[in-house]
Amino acid sequence: MKLYDQQFAPNPRRLRIFMAEKGIECEVVQVNIVAGENLSSDFLEVNPRGRLPTLVLDDGTVLDESLAICRYLEETHPDPALFGSDALSKARIEARQRHMEFDGLLPTAEAFRNSYPGFKKRGVGGNVGEIDAIPELAERGKTMVDRFFHRLDEELGESRYVAGDDFSVADITALCTIDFATTAARIPFPDQCSNIKRWYDDVSSRSSAKA
Amino acid sequence: MKLYDQQFAPNPRRLRIFMAEKGIECEVVQVNIVAGENLSSDFLEVNPRGRLPTLVLDDGTVLDESLAICRYLEETHPDPALFGSDALSKARIEARQRHMEFDGLLPTAEAFRNSYPGFKKRGVGGNVGEIDAIPELAERGKTMVDRFFHRLDEELGESRYVAGDDFSVADITALCTIDFATTAARIPFPDQCSNIKRWYDDVSSRSSAKA
Repeated sequence: MKLYDQQFAPNPRRLRIFMAEKGIECEVVQVNIVAGENLSSDFLEVNPRGRLPTLVLDDGTVLDESLAICRYLEETHPDPALFGSDALSKARIEARQRHMEFDGLLPTAEAFRNSYPGFKKRGVGGNVGEIDAIPELAERGKTMVDRFFHRLDEELGESRYVAGDDFSVADITALCTIDFATTAARIPFPDQCSNIKRWYDDVSSRSSAKA
Repeated sequence: MKLYDQQFAPNPRRLRIFMAEKGIECEVVQVNIVAGENLSSDFLEVNPRGRLPTLVLDDGTVLDESLAICRYLEETHPDPALFGSDALSKARIEARQRHMEFDGLLPTAEAFRNSYPGFKKRGVGGNVGEIDAIPELAERGKTMVDRFFHRLDEELGESRYVAGDDFSVADITALCTIDFATTAARIPFPDQCSNIKRWYDDVSSRSSAKA
């Protein structure tokens, strides 16, 4: 397998942590999104959508979407299960993963992408043509992330991990969201949220978090 | 089971079509989003996020997210499989479902929500507090939907259904996106896209599409 990766973007990191949890290694090629390498003709030949991460299997099959790649690896490397093990835990983890993604990662990405000077004409990621950044959307993103933090803090008062008693893909999405928010999007860590802090110290001390 | 539903919103319809494909019926309660019933204290007691659809199982367990509910039903009613049957088809369908969702349904929803007069202070769905609509985001949504249609038309030139030879949850997301775009978001049907037209006639003639 060959992984097209980008060190600082949140979606490639979600996959790297997922792979580290399962002990999966493969050849890695770095693609610089800020420099526009994901929109180069060489990379678009691999993935016409121009998105990262992208995984190419040994038979040439291209998997072009982060969660789809995670699901493929969950099927081929089931241990440890990161998407749940029965109907209810699978549903619960899917719900929580998507809460983290739509309520947390998406507004974080909007806050970054619509304020970063290099993305003035790349307001939407990938190979979608020019799209002007919308400064109001960056502000809205920050507001939404603040509300997301407060809800997540309440929820983490009820359970050790984002989707219950077990570490799952939902924790990976939440961790990548917070780290991307506090670095790229310049949103302060929610120090007043003690449950998030307890959970963050826990999950970020796993060796996979270095991925 | 009891389903909290809304007749005109795209996410509840995705679930209704999914259930119709599997022949699943249950008690249904209508919740009027435009009138704000999803933000009433009665409904927030069921689902604090104020989102639809919401499914309450017979033991009282609440599933509060559309795709998570679909995955639960896929596990408990596996026939016909709508999320794939092996590692590769599951990955392919997940990728295509998410392409339809992020590239199609999300900008369609942005186009509607940020231009509909009743949602001036409800720019983001669910129980997230007041968020001003952003008119520029409605315009961007229309542009993105137009580009989405052109890419989808090319892709449907290569396969009968959105994720390959078999009808799947990716088709359901795409169908609900197009119908919501052409009605609520007032985006014209892409008549010039002959592959979309062929596919649309096919999937919208299934009896599940009436759901």
